[in-house]
This record gives sequence, C-alpha cells and structure tokens, in this order.
Amino acid sequence: MNITIINIGDELLIGQVVNTNASTMSKLLTEAGMEVRKTLVVGDVCDDIRAAVDEAMHESDAVLVTGGLGPTKDDITKKLLCEYFNSELVENEMALENVKRIFESRGYELTPVNRAQALVPRCCEVLNNDLGTAPCMWFCRDNRVLVSLPGVPFEMEWLMRNRVIPKLQETFGTDIIIIKNILVQGIGESFLSDLIEPWELSLPKNVKLAYLPVAGLTKLRLTAHFKGERFEGIGNISHLSPLTSHLESLYEIAGQYIVGEDCETLDELVHKTLLKKGLTLATAESCTGGNIARLLTAQAGASAYFKGGIVAYSNEVKESVLGVKYSTLEAHGAVSEETVREMVEGVRSRLGADLAIATTGIAGPDGGTKEKPVGTVWIAVADATHTEAKLMQFGANRRQQNIDRSTNQAFAMLIRMICQKD
Amino acid sequence: MNITIINIGDELLIGQVVNTNASTMSKLLTEAGMEVRKTLVVGDVCDDIRAAVDEAMHESDAVLVTGGLGPTKDDITKKLLCEYFNSELVENEMALENVKRIFESRGYELTPVNRAQALVPRCCEVLNNDLGTAPCMWFCRDNRVLVSLPGVPFEMEWLMRNRVIPKLQETFGTDIIIIKNILVQGIGESFLSDLIEPWELSLPKNVKLAYLPVAGLTKLRLTAHFKGERFEGIGNISHLSPLTSHLESLYEIAGQYIVGEDCETLDELVHKTLLKKGLTLATAESCTGGNIARLLTAQAGASAYFKGGIVAYSNEVKESVLGVKYSTLEAHGAVSEETVREMVEGVRSRLGADLAIATTGIAGPDGGTKEKPVGTVWIAVADATHTEAKLMQFGANRRQQNIDRSTNQAFAMLIRMICQKD
Repeated sequence: MNITIINIGDELLIGQVVNTNASTMSKLLTEAGMEVRKTLVVGDVCDDIRAAVDEAMHESDAVLVTGGLGPTKDDITKKLLCEYFNSELVENEMALENVKRIFESRGYELTPVNRAQALVPRCCEVLNNDLGTAPCMWFCRDNRVLVSLPGVPFEMEWLMRNRVIPKLQETFGTDIIIIKNILVQGIGESFLSDLIEPWELSLPKNVKLAYLPVAGLTKLRLTAHFKGERFEGIGNISHLSPLTSHLESLYEIAGQYIVGEDCETLDELVHKTLLKKGLTLATAESCTGGNIARLLTAQAGASAYFKGGIVAYSNEVKESVLGVKYSTLEAHGAVSEETVREMVEGVRSRLGADLAIATTGIAGPDGGTKEKPVGTVWIAVADATHTEAKLMQFGANRRQQNIDRSTNQAFAMLIRMICQKD
Repeated sequence: MNITIINIGDELLIGQVVNTNASTMSKLLTEAGMEVRKTLVVGDVCDDIRAAVDEAMHESDAVLVTGGLGPTKDDITKKLLCEYFNSELVENEMALENVKRIFESRGYELTPVNRAQALVPRCCEVLNNDLGTAPCMWFCRDNRVLVSLPGVPFEMEWLMRNRVIPKLQETFGTDIIIIKNILVQGIGESFLSDLIEPWELSLPKNVKLAYLPVAGLTKLRLTAHFKGERFEGIGNISHLSPLTSHLESLYEIAGQYIVGEDCETLDELVHKTLLKKGLTLATAESCTGGNIARLLTAQAGASAYFKGGIVAYSNEVKESVLGVKYSTLEAHGAVSEETVREMVEGVRSRLGADLAIATTGIAGPDGGTKEKPVGTVWIAVADATHTEAKLMQFGANRRQQNIDRSTNQAFAMLIRMICQKD
C-alpha cells in the first residue's frame, strides 16, 4: 500500500507558511506502518489541483488531500472533488449537526456561509470533525481511496489520529515498521560512513540505514520493515526487538561515538537523562547566548532539574555574576580554557546545581583574530569533583551553525560525564 | 516562467524532518519575482526521483532539486541526473579545489570518499558552493533548466541567494517586485482585518496585502508587482517607493499598533533599534527560559548592546542572582507583578544596562492553578527612571506558543518604551 499526500494552498507555494502538515501526516502514517511515497504542494488553482489529484489517484492506493475546505472564496477543493467524482453537492445531516454544535458552543449565530460547510458530494462518506466546521470526506473508487481533510493543523492532526488512520488500517491492513534512532557525536559523517561501512553492508534487505547530520551530531536511523502477517498474534512488536543484534554489532564498532538512542535530539536526551537520574543543572553561556537554556526549558518538566542559567555576554557579567577573576580574563582572554573553567565552576556553585555547562567562543562573523579565529569555542562541563574543558575549532561557519555546534558539543560532553558516573 | 521544486529524502517522507527547504526556496524565489507552481517530496528511491524529475522537466521552465548529494551511500541524486542527461561523471577542477579548501580549513585529511564529491556530470555547469563540499549543478536542455542543490539548509540558502537566483534572473529575466513588511502588535488578526478593510479595498490591483500572524504579532506584507520593463534604467527601484502613499494612509488608521517596518521579526527590530540608539540591554527570564537572549545573540553584533541575561528558573536564582526579595516571592508568588518588577529592576542595575526585560509565567502544560492558569505571564521592561509591567493571559496554548508570545510581547513593550523616549 502506498500513499500520496497533496497539500493545497498559495501560502505554501510563496513560502509564507512552512508545510508542517506534510511532516505531521507522514510521521503519523509511518508510525502506523504505512508508506508515504510522495508529498506535493499545489496552489489554489483548479487545473493544478485536478491534475495532481488525477495523477495521484492513478499511482497510489490512497491519496490524502489537505486544504481548500474553508468558507472563504479561495477554497475550491470541495467543488472540484465533487466534479472529479461526478457527484453533486448535498447537505449532510451529520455535518450540519456538527456545524450547529460548534457555533452554539462558541455563542455565534449560524450564517448561510457557515451552513454551506455542511454541503458535501453525495458519493462521499463524511468522517466527523469534532474540532471544526469543515467536514472530512472519504471517497472510494476502484479500490483506491481519496480523503479530503481541512488544512488547519490541529483539526487535521485530530482527524488523522481518530478517523483517517483507523479507517485506512481497516481498509488496507498494514505492515509493521520499527524505527530506531542512534545519536552519534564526535566523528564527521564521512569518517563515520567509512567506519561502519562493513556493518552497513551486512544489514538484511528489510533494514535500511539513513544518515541525518545536524550541527556536529549525526542521527543514524535504522528502519526495519516487516510484512504485517509475519508477526500476527505475537503481540507488541516493539518488544521483539529484531534490531537488537544489529545494534550490538554497531556498538562494537562505533560505541565510543554513540551518545544515546531513541531521542530525536541531544537536548531531548539531556532532558530525559537528568530527569531519570534526579540531577540538577546550571548553565553559563557566552557564545551560545541562551540557546542551551532555551532548548532545555522548551521541554515540559525542565523545572525539575534546571536551576537557571547565566548568559554572560560581557566580561563584566562573567566577573560579577559568575565570579570569573579579572586577572584570568586579563591574562588569558574571555575565550580560553582558564575562563571557561572558572565559568562552569562558578555557575555550578553559585546556583547550587549538581552539574554545570559553560561555553565561551567566537561565533562570528566578526571578532576573530589570528590566534583565535571565528569558530574557536571553549566548552566545559563540571560536577562536584571534576571539570572537563575542551577546545573546538568549528571553522569559519555561519554564526548560527557555530552556536548550534557548540550547543550539541556541550550536551554530548554532559551526557558522557553523567554516563561515566554510572 | 514557472518553477517546480523537488526535495529528496526519506527523512522528509517519514516525517522526521520538517521540509523547511521548500518554504525557504519558495520565499526567496517569490521575493525575486519568480513563480513556484508546485513543490514535491520523494524518497531516496531511483525510480521515484527519475519520474518526478522527468515530469517536472516537461511542465516547468526551471526545476530545482535538493538532497542526495552527500558522500554517503544513500545519496543517489548525482548518478541519477548523470544518467538522465546521458552524461558521464568527471572530476571538476573547481569543485575539487573547493573540497580541498574546506577540508584544509577544518584541518581534516581528504579521503577518497570526499574527493568523490568533486565528480560531476560532464554536461553540467558547477556553481561553486562556498559553504560545503557538495557541488551545486546547473543543467540545461531545450531551454529548460534543472538545478541540483545540497539539502543542507544553510548551504542551500546561500546557494539560492548567491548563485541560483541571480543565474535564473539572468537566464529568464524577471518582473520587479517590491515588498514592504509592517509589524503590527497588540491587536488580533480579525480585529485588524476589520479596522483596515477600507484601506485594503483602496489598494491598486498590482499591490497585494498578506497577513502573517505569528505568536501575537501580525506581519503585514505589501507586495507591489511591476512588469520588468517599466522601470528599466531608472536605477534602484527601492528608492522609488511606490508604496509610500499607501503606507501613510495605513499609519493614519492603525499607527498605534504598528511597532516597526522592514524587519521580518521583532528580535531583528530590537537588535537594529538598540544598535542605532546606542543603548544597552539586560534580560531576566523565567518562563521564556533564555529564548529572548538567544534570539538577540543569534544576530551578529549583539555584543555591542547585550550585557547579559539571567535565566532565573528556580526561586533561589531569582533571589540570589537577581535580588528578588524572599518576602515578595512568599507573599505574591513567582508569577506576580511584584516579582517581575523586582526581576527587571534587579537585572538592570546588577548588570549595569540602560534597559531591561523580565518575564515570569506559567508556560504549561502543567503548573497552572485556578487563580493563575497556564498562559498567565507577567512581563516587564525598565529604564533608569521607569518600570512598566503587564499581565498577559495567553490561554492554555502549547508551551512553545506561550514562550513565543511572551517573547514577542516583551520585545514590543521594549520598542514602545524606547520610542517614547524620542
């Protein structure tokens, strides 16, 4: 079974809105064991939508379409699908009840424009949209399915989870897909590729490997694909771990570079690890400018471990708030091992945390010197007994890249320090 | 002239990565006066890529392809394009020099895998990629163009701005588009829409208005479209300001809500304003967790005005580092007017800045009470003589949305405080 997703909207084609609907839908379908073959975006143009729908209906088992269902003039999907399936628009009782319910709950009067939301092609089945007035429509022709969903992200996501995916599973049955993420740090993508090539070649055909490098970190993704019937009746597939032996061999070859599993990012891994271990953290950031703190605090529950952070951008703040000695700054400069050590130890003790992170460097594009070019960054982590500092030379990258790489390097050093404690 | 964008990558089809490349490319092309007709995503599957490329080459003047150019085995675009254009892979001198330069600057040894990055189809023209080792390839057939770019977002963006768009303009010619951004804050989108409707209806046909609401801020974008020949030889079009009179009328109607122009975001506006005025800033963040500091420091030159910030996540840090009184926290709680005032005044004086921002609130999803539900946020700004605090009730939004709205509200309050000084 393969799926094509079509997202409709001029706002997507002019780059005004990032198409998160495509990734949300793809993720939900993949997790449910279904394969998305292609996704495409077309504008609010009848001919373009019709051509995209027609092509997709010829090459896919299921076509999911979002957008163009609102009450405003530029929304044309419904009429077009009605024509495409040679049907006529009729008022659907369930859809009308739904529109009435929603307007009542908001205390608004029902206008004719809103009532028209309950008009749907006679040939489709309406899947009730509990969160909005636009109906979700399920069409079927020659054993192929087309589903039209509203483009509003939270309505679309609710419908996918509660209506569309269950009905697709019922209609087509699905295979089982197991995905495993491994976070690798401290080795470039091409060196990693050379190192694990023999292992990669030894993987069975149903297991695929992908490299996803981001800011000094490489996420390796193993995807194992099993025909649905193979595991029928065995129960929870995730406990069968058909990837275990492959993972073990990967650890034998590249274990020193692996910082964690089953997380999308290092900040997620740090968050989970600190919560699990019950350890607290403080941060002292110069070149990362608060990026480390905001990534951790963006996650719900961070207050359980995150004491606070100092963005010590100026030397005065390094001295007055973190207690870095004037003589240290004078002798070695703000970007130096001596300074980063005093920063990390200062913030840990002043904020009373178990662990601390500090960064100081030259993010660029200006501020570099011959001795300390742009991309020179000192990073340190500390616990009560031990401080570790490391010099990174990221090269004259973009400012944001230097910030992101410093952030990931700091997270990786912290994870390694925590693991050594075990 | 119309363009199709093809983004290649399994990670996009399983929803692991949001396809920001499509929106970045669409935005840049639109701003340069070119029209994107369709964007699509296919996986790392030869047949699917070939079919997508072939179809796009038949229906578009230009096809832009990203992804599949890395040194690892799952990257197959280059070979496939070589076949598609009936060419053969040869080592390109400029591309090789570029790979060597980048490896040298990073202090790495050049491996055969990396050297292979300089292999390109003989029939293509290489556009030098200053930021990475993957070459950008320009193919031409029957007056149609295909450009293959790396999928790494910052490399792609740099190449689009500096190589691809100028060459597309040279090849196809383009109309002139003038874009004006106006940042509006403190009024909801639908109220704003009602307020400025008569003005919007009075705009000439070649001027279009778009609403771009993000986290409590609405960006109004005016786009004026002129046929290329119309301004030929007149020189710098941006100085002609054909939008001036329309802008003046907009200020008459909605001036009180307009915080700035010609910036994409409020952090950019704050950055430019502080640099221009020569004022310094300090931040004390609780619920925004460092987001304010990192947005400002992400911009080159922030060290000229940004003294530093305290991420005061725990009450201990609010007391010990910011000097918020224990009695204040005890009597009014961390999320209160009294606390936010002591935070903003504390950080301003302790870090010795002209201006300060403070935030404290309940970002959610947990931690709300009946009196202070999730989304309750106090925000304050201060200069040497004056402190202003404001209570926001953002409602039970997502955590990130509450953080982003608090951030924008704080920036808007700061801008208004600075403007009152004038």
